[in-house]
Amino acid sequence: MFDYKLLSALAAVVEQAGFERAALALGLSQSAVSQRIKLLEARVGQPVLVRATPPQPTDLGRRLLNHVQQVRLLERDLRGQVPALDEGDQPERLRIAINADSLATWWAQAVAGFCTERQVLLDLVVEDQAVGLKRMRAGEVAACVCAVERPVAGARSIALGAMRYRALASPGFIARHFPAGVTPEALARSPAIVFGPDDYLQHRYLESQGIEGTFSHHLCPSSEGFVQLTSRGLGWGLVPELQVVDELASGELVELLPGRSLDVPLYWHHWRNGGELLAELTGQLVATAAKLLVP
Amino acid sequence: MFDYKLLSALAAVVEQAGFERAALALGLSQSAVSQRIKLLEARVGQPVLVRATPPQPTDLGRRLLNHVQQVRLLERDLRGQVPALDEGDQPERLRIAINADSLATWWAQAVAGFCTERQVLLDLVVEDQAVGLKRMRAGEVAACVCAVERPVAGARSIALGAMRYRALASPGFIARHFPAGVTPEALARSPAIVFGPDDYLQHRYLESQGIEGTFSHHLCPSSEGFVQLTSRGLGWGLVPELQVVDELASGELVELLPGRSLDVPLYWHHWRNGGELLAELTGQLVATAAKLLVP
Repeated sequence: MFDYKLLSALAAVVEQAGFERAALALGLSQSAVSQRIKLLEARVGQPVLVRATPPQPTDLGRRLLNHVQQVRLLERDLRGQVPALDEGDQPERLRIAINADSLATWWAQAVAGFCTERQVLLDLVVEDQAVGLKRMRAGEVAACVCAVERPVAGARSIALGAMRYRALASPGFIARHFPAGVTPEALARSPAIVFGPDDYLQHRYLESQGIEGTFSHHLCPSSEGFVQLTSRGLGWGLVPELQVVDELASGELVELLPGRSLDVPLYWHHWRNGGELLAELTGQLVATAAKLLVP
Repeated sequence: MFDYKLLSALAAVVEQAGFERAALALGLSQSAVSQRIKLLEARVGQPVLVRATPPQPTDLGRRLLNHVQQVRLLERDLRGQVPALDEGDQPERLRIAINADSLATWWAQAVAGFCTERQVLLDLVVEDQAVGLKRMRAGEVAACVCAVERPVAGARSIALGAMRYRALASPGFIARHFPAGVTPEALARSPAIVFGPDDYLQHRYLESQGIEGTFSHHLCPSSEGFVQLTSRGLGWGLVPELQVVDELASGELVELLPGRSLDVPLYWHHWRNGGELLAELTGQLVATAAKLLVP
């Protein structure tokens, strides 16, 4: 069998984003962790880590991590069945990649019951909905909420429903930038807010209005910050309807073009051999998400 | 003088987090960007980038980026004085590193007037308050909001005031975990919520109660997600008072130990030769932050 001491060292360095923290998490010296990585690289005959800050797995490293993640999920089940194997009453941990807007809106409500009953701790990793799967591919997470349907090898994906986005701005912003109505010309000249380099929602909205190419925009990689910048009149942007129910009701935020929403379907990716805990979470999540998201 | 075509290629690769996007941003082919980086490395005689995903600057690369950032700020002023140099009516952009909790609470209100009047676009980069300065050191940003006072070489820091954090949980969580009151023993056994590996607020709170060492916790790197997990009863955690005014008033969130707050001082770091626009923002920010933060 593989030497799981070496593989655990690799997983710790990537998950803890550094050799020093990995050493702390494993209760080893930093040089012991380095030794294990070097030994692993000697065994497999090629590098498993790029020594950057933070360290990144190589392609081979990624395949190894992916394997470690699946073994961990299987071990978790076995511990449930063979109590003697259990290391004290440590609560279970599930590491999950999720897009920021889901985390800012429906996620807590959807999983609260499950986590409380089963005493599960969550390690959440925020990734843009378009790129979250890279964490699955890297074997860093047990599951992932993202906008891509096609699962990675060894995993399954299930449709959860869609998040509905509306293009919003403050009344002051609309008065300043659209005195003659929200025309494509005025829209192309007004500053937008974009979540980050992988957020193309504003591009898609502009394209639906016949506007192509670049446009001036703020970058704000925070769901709550995005709503705050919009409310304070710095720009217009696509915001999840769920996140601004109060602001829409009070008129603090207003739709640019009423009725033009953009739905982003979300998928739950989880390992095929992910074990019982993950299967149970999957069942509950699919049921609760259906109530919170748009079909 | 330096060859700024080469330096701009380096800045674009780091800021855009990849060669492909850097090429897009510069309007060049990807191989042209690679060529420029290679030429720069040949000139300086050592690597400027670690070819990871995303690419990371080496120490030397960081020093070069730091220089590029300062030159850009000076150019901005010059463009204002010599209108002929101006490349059309492109709005100004300021790249600023900021902690997630500031962005989720007081930031938009503090800078809205300035950004709207001066038509400034913001490129915000979210970094934990303890580590935001690394972006200044790397020369990736013009300014930074963080909890560290000491400025990097070439920069100044100004105290903005403090964010007040309170240890909160839902009434259901308190009933479940603290039936006999919030004793240190019960606190040590209850799941906490931690923002990320650089967030030691929960550790500090536990230490103030005489609890040392590790404790079970969820990881949730999202300000809004953090409040959501807390409200839904998944754990207790330190939340900025500013962010939960409504939840505290309605009783949706409750203090664990009433009156025990934790203040985190915030500092505004900006380049000494940062130019007029940055100086003006600094003036306005210091004045508005004083009204929103705790002295």
